[in-house]
Amino acid sequence: MLKVKFIPQNKLIEVESGTNLLKAADQAGLYVEGDCAGKGTCGKCRVKVIEGNRGDPTDAEKEQLSDSELKAGWVLACTRKVEQNCVVEVPLQRDAYTRKTTMPGGVENLEAEPFVEKIAVKLDLPALKDQVADLERLLIKLDRPNLTVNLRELAGLPALLRNNGFSVTVVISGSRLISIEPGDTTDQLYGIAFDIGTTTIVGSLLDLKTAAVLAVAAATNPQNIYGADVISRITHASQVKGGLKQLQDKVIGSANEIIRDLLRQTKIARDHVYEIVIVGNTTMSHFFMGVDPAYLAPAPFIPAYSRALDVEASELGLKINPAGRVVFLPNIAGYIGSDTVGVILATNMDRRRDICAAIDIGTNGELVLVANGKLTACSTAAGPAFEGAQIKQGMRAAAGAIEAVSYVNGDIELSIIGNTPACGICGSGLIDAAAALLDAGLIEPSGRFINPEENPDEVPACFKDRLRRGPGGFEFVLVPGAKSETGDDLVLTQGDLRELQLAKGAIYAGLMILLKEAGISENDLDQVLLAGAFGNYVRKESALTIGLLPQLPPEKIIAVGNAAGDGSKMALASKAVRARALTTPEKVEHLELSTRPDFQDIFVNALPFRNN
Amino acid sequence: MLKVKFIPQNKLIEVESGTNLLKAADQAGLYVEGDCAGKGTCGKCRVKVIEGNRGDPTDAEKEQLSDSELKAGWVLACTRKVEQNCVVEVPLQRDAYTRKTTMPGGVENLEAEPFVEKIAVKLDLPALKDQVADLERLLIKLDRPNLTVNLRELAGLPALLRNNGFSVTVVISGSRLISIEPGDTTDQLYGIAFDIGTTTIVGSLLDLKTAAVLAVAAATNPQNIYGADVISRITHASQVKGGLKQLQDKVIGSANEIIRDLLRQTKIARDHVYEIVIVGNTTMSHFFMGVDPAYLAPAPFIPAYSRALDVEASELGLKINPAGRVVFLPNIAGYIGSDTVGVILATNMDRRRDICAAIDIGTNGELVLVANGKLTACSTAAGPAFEGAQIKQGMRAAAGAIEAVSYVNGDIELSIIGNTPACGICGSGLIDAAAALLDAGLIEPSGRFINPEENPDEVPACFKDRLRRGPGGFEFVLVPGAKSETGDDLVLTQGDLRELQLAKGAIYAGLMILLKEAGISENDLDQVLLAGAFGNYVRKESALTIGLLPQLPPEKIIAVGNAAGDGSKMALASKAVRARALTTPEKVEHLELSTRPDFQDIFVNALPFRNN
Repeated sequence: MLKVKFIPQNKLIEVESGTNLLKAADQAGLYVEGDCAGKGTCGKCRVKVIEGNRGDPTDAEKEQLSDSELKAGWVLACTRKVEQNCVVEVPLQRDAYTRKTTMPGGVENLEAEPFVEKIAVKLDLPALKDQVADLERLLIKLDRPNLTVNLRELAGLPALLRNNGFSVTVVISGSRLISIEPGDTTDQLYGIAFDIGTTTIVGSLLDLKTAAVLAVAAATNPQNIYGADVISRITHASQVKGGLKQLQDKVIGSANEIIRDLLRQTKIARDHVYEIVIVGNTTMSHFFMGVDPAYLAPAPFIPAYSRALDVEASELGLKINPAGRVVFLPNIAGYIGSDTVGVILATNMDRRRDICAAIDIGTNGELVLVANGKLTACSTAAGPAFEGAQIKQGMRAAAGAIEAVSYVNGDIELSIIGNTPACGICGSGLIDAAAALLDAGLIEPSGRFINPEENPDEVPACFKDRLRRGPGGFEFVLVPGAKSETGDDLVLTQGDLRELQLAKGAIYAGLMILLKEAGISENDLDQVLLAGAFGNYVRKESALTIGLLPQLPPEKIIAVGNAAGDGSKMALASKAVRARALTTPEKVEHLELSTRPDFQDIFVNALPFRNN
Repeated sequence: MLKVKFIPQNKLIEVESGTNLLKAADQAGLYVEGDCAGKGTCGKCRVKVIEGNRGDPTDAEKEQLSDSELKAGWVLACTRKVEQNCVVEVPLQRDAYTRKTTMPGGVENLEAEPFVEKIAVKLDLPALKDQVADLERLLIKLDRPNLTVNLRELAGLPALLRNNGFSVTVVISGSRLISIEPGDTTDQLYGIAFDIGTTTIVGSLLDLKTAAVLAVAAATNPQNIYGADVISRITHASQVKGGLKQLQDKVIGSANEIIRDLLRQTKIARDHVYEIVIVGNTTMSHFFMGVDPAYLAPAPFIPAYSRALDVEASELGLKINPAGRVVFLPNIAGYIGSDTVGVILATNMDRRRDICAAIDIGTNGELVLVANGKLTACSTAAGPAFEGAQIKQGMRAAAGAIEAVSYVNGDIELSIIGNTPACGICGSGLIDAAAALLDAGLIEPSGRFINPEENPDEVPACFKDRLRRGPGGFEFVLVPGAKSETGDDLVLTQGDLRELQLAKGAIYAGLMILLKEAGISENDLDQVLLAGAFGNYVRKESALTIGLLPQLPPEKIIAVGNAAGDGSKMALASKAVRARALTTPEKVEHLELSTRPDFQDIFVNALPFRNN
């Protein structure tokens, strides 16, 4: 056994010799960035060895790290084994969720109509002339003789009644009596809405009496350690013994930390939270419930279930009232989850009579079209690039991320999140950068950098040193090493542009298929709604410039905030919205793009940047 | 720590010095007889110290054991502490359940109409053109879209379908899909009916396709160690930390042993048993479910619940299919349990148009009257004497028990259960003995032995030596020590007669109150049904002689076997009977005898033996 100390978190653990640093950090409860689940291909799990355990760089390190980085002690945690006691510096986790927790949403306009009811009652005392049993005495008083009650609550009932003069408050969820509390607690009625993304988990605590959002908390989805994308995680779940349980434990653990944070912020007692309503993609739903999504990955992409699941909090180990209910809203298809149901609810797509598309770009991309009152939806393998995955210096929209790039007065201007030197580029920055370089004439509509060696005259003087040949083709220096956090140049590579093209092409092609199937064209669209944090922060003009969106007047393009999360809050706050949510999947026709013979053609046509 | 070896069971355990032998035997998994839960008052927990740990007799031992017994090494397990390594002989457990498992019942006449359904289906294979999720694919095929399914079954569904070519059998219980099995298993559909008595637990395994009883198994209720009567056990549950759990564990453990026995007898797989239906008194129901019956003991005798409870087998740790359902039928009142519901079902009392009383004498006594289509019921503190408790040499109807006594040709004749010397007297023997001694003129109608010293002429010569003065008044020697198993005389004491009078008086008075409340007299009774094993074996003539029953022509008195147990089998085999069971309590008016100002008077009038 060897000792590893992680700084600045100051965690000391013992691991077996040969354990890699990624696993060691996980064991210490620390999160190390990474997209490729330890395959050594993304180059993002860099940590710095401060003391001990120096050794020759691994092949992956030689490929992914610069000489100066290697010299400074940076290693890739996933390829570096612990062979001596050591001290390792782990960069503080850069979470991107601030953006996701601060957007206003639709729940503010709702009238509270909670699914959970609380009723205070004072029972008549039993007597020899009135020997009705405790439970029946309570249910008769409530005039709800058929409520079910679990053994745990029943076991505590006799003493509870007698210790409180037969004055209690009951909590009812549908046909279930879930909790019986001493005295009158009707003023304490809370629920939590979760939006469980592949990358980010957000929880919102609501006062169910008023539908007011009292607190929001979020975390990076710790399943990340098993890969940034759902396919990597499904592979881990089906191929590693106990893998499914690991994935479930990660997400349940994270949800519990968010719950703890929400309760701390509001000083609300755990037992007064009676309900959790969740949206998430179909894979996240399966992992959360501990159901193997193995058959989602290969064609024909079949989930184990699509209905909403409604289970007891204690069954999942969620730390609200143990008898509280946890409702994961229904999925529409294997790659169109309840997050899309949330988008539909929050944007009223299921009730609109105009022609409107909603695009939700998270780690995956889902599209919904309503036309003539008919809903269709498809999913595209689009997302991870916009969360920073597969982009050389990509990162989530956290502190240090280049979030906006513009071409102004012949120069490139950058905006960085937070008061800190840049360390990478996030999705909105990526789109902006491509649009700006298109505007500057440095990128051809095909997506290629112009060749500065062959066409030196086309490169403005101020960009001469910045457009250069890199290890994988040409690249553009966004931030020189002198100004970056790491000391290395931050660049946009030809590879990054290709990833961006594939992602934006997939989304655009998906939209075209939906329009084609509905027998309309992009000009018929009354509105295009951009859902999700990314949709909220992306600049419409840049999205139009690179051809991510159809060429519509910008006023028709509307950012609607975190619509998926709003949907979960609305379904938590209102039983009418909840009922709508449960029937939404049957109203949506799912188009499986892989069955469309026309998809590849439309997709390839959608790859070029259109610089209007 | 000291070593105790128990023979002939040959169990060796280690206990702390000072542990009493009753606890030590329990720890070794052995059952020692006893009625008083270790208070040292019943004198029945005798064990023989063979080696080591000899010491002065305790006060209880001096009172309860004869000099010859003390000399032979007999001690009372509950008062004797382990202070040295020792070898202790524990008499083999004498179970009384053979009588209860061999009676025919009403289920034989039922048409099978099981609550649990089994359906074999072959699903269409999924495809890109047919991406319906696994669960919905199954439910659509079944045309039961709203069945609930638990996470455990759901988690296993995708692999199960694919490993079996999408051919599976589903098991449905009401609105629940409880199990999904590979291939076609529709020929395997079983359930178990339990009759959980205070003294004896009986389980019957039924083929639910035919309602045939395939096997029966039984055990003495191991809660006995905490007292023979329900009040002692309720006291243990509420006063000893963890006591409720101990009582639940005992009964669940015993039920699991019976299940194992039934499965072994029939070679049926555990997972093919999908349902358990139980009857038992209200206290047994509470213990089984782990709900504290504390408020049943003191007035006003309030149970925690009276409805039927329907829980998953896994929740109680019952070893049938983990998702199988366990239904404990509803209680009528604190001392009228689902066993009485079973009696009503099995005897059709809820449908009879004549005037009929049913008397179920187990450890407690319950009475039901139907008159003019109206059901009334009451309970009496009657029973334990008939199971041998509170009778000096009383025992259950096991091998060695005097089960019948008659006065023939001027002498007393005995019948003993099994091919063995007598060792005690059971309930039917007790009633017979009293009737025979009444016939012989040795007992006055008041219940007193005649005083042989004052009236020597009234004692026939052959009984001169047998009616004698004992430590607690006069006593009659039923079996001389030379012929008994223990070597001690087996006697019927004045105290035993008083216990019998109290018990039979309570039952008779209860019946009188039911008749009075219905405005009828005993002569209006068309039938009196005797339920329970005791009712099956008691001689009507003796019961009439001692005034346990009203003076009716013997043909109106009918033994109906273990009607409570029959009711549980019928409710297991037929969903129509099940539905009747659930609504039976609301059709029965409960008379609480303790609120009746006329009860004491009627009770006192019922105490004398009437020797017609």
